[in-house]
Amino acid sequence: MLKVKTPKEVMEIIKSEFFPLENCEYVPLEEALGRVLSKDIKAEEFVPNFDRSTVDGWAVRACDSFGCSEAVPAELKIAGEVKMGEKPHFELKEGCCAQIPTGGALPQGADCVQMLEYSESYGDGSVGILKAAAPGQNLIRRGDDVYPGKRVLEKGRVLRPQDIGALAAMGVVSVPVAKRLKIGVISTGDELVTADKKPNYGEIRDVNGYAISALLREFGAEVIYYGIIKDSEELLLRWAEKALKDCDGLIISGGSSVGQKDGAEKVISAVGELLFHGIAVKPGKPTIMGKAGGKPVFGLPGHPAAAFLMTKLFVLPLLSVLMGRKDKEYCVSAVLSENISANHGRAEILSVRLKKEGSGMIAEPVRGKSGLISVLSSSDGYIIIERDREGLPAGSEVQVYLN
Amino acid sequence: MLKVKTPKEVMEIIKSEFFPLENCEYVPLEEALGRVLSKDIKAEEFVPNFDRSTVDGWAVRACDSFGCSEAVPAELKIAGEVKMGEKPHFELKEGCCAQIPTGGALPQGADCVQMLEYSESYGDGSVGILKAAAPGQNLIRRGDDVYPGKRVLEKGRVLRPQDIGALAAMGVVSVPVAKRLKIGVISTGDELVTADKKPNYGEIRDVNGYAISALLREFGAEVIYYGIIKDSEELLLRWAEKALKDCDGLIISGGSSVGQKDGAEKVISAVGELLFHGIAVKPGKPTIMGKAGGKPVFGLPGHPAAAFLMTKLFVLPLLSVLMGRKDKEYCVSAVLSENISANHGRAEILSVRLKKEGSGMIAEPVRGKSGLISVLSSSDGYIIIERDREGLPAGSEVQVYLN
Repeated sequence: MLKVKTPKEVMEIIKSEFFPLENCEYVPLEEALGRVLSKDIKAEEFVPNFDRSTVDGWAVRACDSFGCSEAVPAELKIAGEVKMGEKPHFELKEGCCAQIPTGGALPQGADCVQMLEYSESYGDGSVGILKAAAPGQNLIRRGDDVYPGKRVLEKGRVLRPQDIGALAAMGVVSVPVAKRLKIGVISTGDELVTADKKPNYGEIRDVNGYAISALLREFGAEVIYYGIIKDSEELLLRWAEKALKDCDGLIISGGSSVGQKDGAEKVISAVGELLFHGIAVKPGKPTIMGKAGGKPVFGLPGHPAAAFLMTKLFVLPLLSVLMGRKDKEYCVSAVLSENISANHGRAEILSVRLKKEGSGMIAEPVRGKSGLISVLSSSDGYIIIERDREGLPAGSEVQVYLN
Repeated sequence: MLKVKTPKEVMEIIKSEFFPLENCEYVPLEEALGRVLSKDIKAEEFVPNFDRSTVDGWAVRACDSFGCSEAVPAELKIAGEVKMGEKPHFELKEGCCAQIPTGGALPQGADCVQMLEYSESYGDGSVGILKAAAPGQNLIRRGDDVYPGKRVLEKGRVLRPQDIGALAAMGVVSVPVAKRLKIGVISTGDELVTADKKPNYGEIRDVNGYAISALLREFGAEVIYYGIIKDSEELLLRWAEKALKDCDGLIISGGSSVGQKDGAEKVISAVGELLFHGIAVKPGKPTIMGKAGGKPVFGLPGHPAAAFLMTKLFVLPLLSVLMGRKDKEYCVSAVLSENISANHGRAEILSVRLKKEGSGMIAEPVRGKSGLISVLSSSDGYIIIERDREGLPAGSEVQVYLN
């Protein structure tokens, strides 16, 4: 029998046994998308570095426009025209204005911009302003976006397109990011063949090697797939040792039960330290975690859905710790379509399909034996039913983790 | 003045003017993650192709176990042992059983498996079964996962890791996917400099070239960034023509207003057909859509947040049409932290930060002039306030689109 840990205990073990690797590298801005920022980014300049018009119009001194109206326009002398990308070489005196395009630099003396729509041209070198403008109106001030010392992006953030934009604005063209983790994946089982082979009776194609590798790649890791190793402790040990030399972590899929041929636990104990064997969760109970030279080693159930979900729930959070990655995780709220009974004593992970209904979402449990890859593939996400719940009635509001 | 379309009208134009390109290519399974499936995938085989035990135990004929208990075990003769990955070369006769590992093939004659835990060994070639088993118990039946003709994955799906697993299970190692779209990006504006330059007074760094390219890449497109083109209709036209030769679509950032130097509309009209100029949305109003030789051409506002949001709201959905991509979009429900006033006459896009509170989420509007890239970068998503709403009171439930 396995002495199981609760999911919460597993997360505590992950946080107490593993630490950020703090191995940073610099990548060009164009390649930084999806990488994990390894240093806080503070601005060193003002963005923009000048007061900027947000409209096409007239740069004016606000006080010159006070009290004007369509009936009684403020007549201002045109002192010049602001050119895009250039510093205006004139100063705005009392009673004067200057034409300014969207994005143009406000001339000295001016303190706001009035839109073209609220002006009339007199054709004699002067214009009438038809509506009063307030100081600061239609302007982005110097430093409104960022200013020196402002922390714009926080260490640990996974860089999104808008963050790439913010880095561009600040001129950060070489970006400090956590090095990509290199994770080894080994599938083990005498019954396994690669996806390109036609299985004989009694054989099945390896699913986990492909699905878990894809999950890790999607998460930003580099994956070395060592292929299918036969159920032999000696062979498995040799490959695990090799993988741990090459990689920052290792996942062994299959052989994680306590059966005769389930060598993962022994191999993990042989290469390092066994942290636990068994998690109180369904599917996924026979999951092993170990540590070898500070590197994580997982033994996952051969069962594809279990291996997949254990990777999502525990392997990726561990890799987050190693990379110093700070993710915000969001769930989609939905209403359960039917009653669900759950097992006592273990948290249960239930695959669901999401459907729009009115302004909300309905979560429909996906039928079929849990653990089939087709069940996982036809679902949009999963809900977690805590171990102390006997189940959930139809109509319950549930939080769906997206697949 | 722009004659604006509503967002709904824009979506209708996208759907009526553009069509799937139907240009498919085959990629190796290992490279199919995130690609758009271009054909339905139907199974051609049974997976698994045999009845498979889900536990370590004894393959039995259920009827031989009926009525047994711990007090009165069913004593069965051991007829053999099932080896992983092999077809059992014996048939189970009445009163017999066979040892079977998790994943082993059920021998002929047996119709279920009883767990090892519910048996006792007599050491004389027979075992006692301590609990009755029902036919089918602890089995995955042949074809339970997939069977010939079953549509497992639908055309248009963006392939997730679990879909890669399902393809592996079916032996699909060469995957039909929509070709990657190649999208050209041109930034225009005399005030722009590249991110590696220090802007002079009146200049700013190009943000859109980087942020929009990243957004398109994240969406799976290949991007050719043509750099910054000066505000010259002639130059812009020449580069737009070149880009449309190279690419499946073009985005021109900047020059989309109706100002003197805003040449995007003229250039789009010159290379093809102008579909509309102006969307009733804030920010993002001066957005242009055109079509040149069936290819989409967008003119986006230079304003970074507007350009970014218009790309999310309209460019990516259009690219989805071209790729035959069917996305499910999910929102996160949250409660608005404060009163929001909105403009009449235009839908408003409001950036928000999400915070956990209790079991729900709070959406906090991100302060700062809308449209600054730092506002976008410090937000987690956005809400859309429809044009017919004057605003939203604090405590409203809102749907947040994640950034």
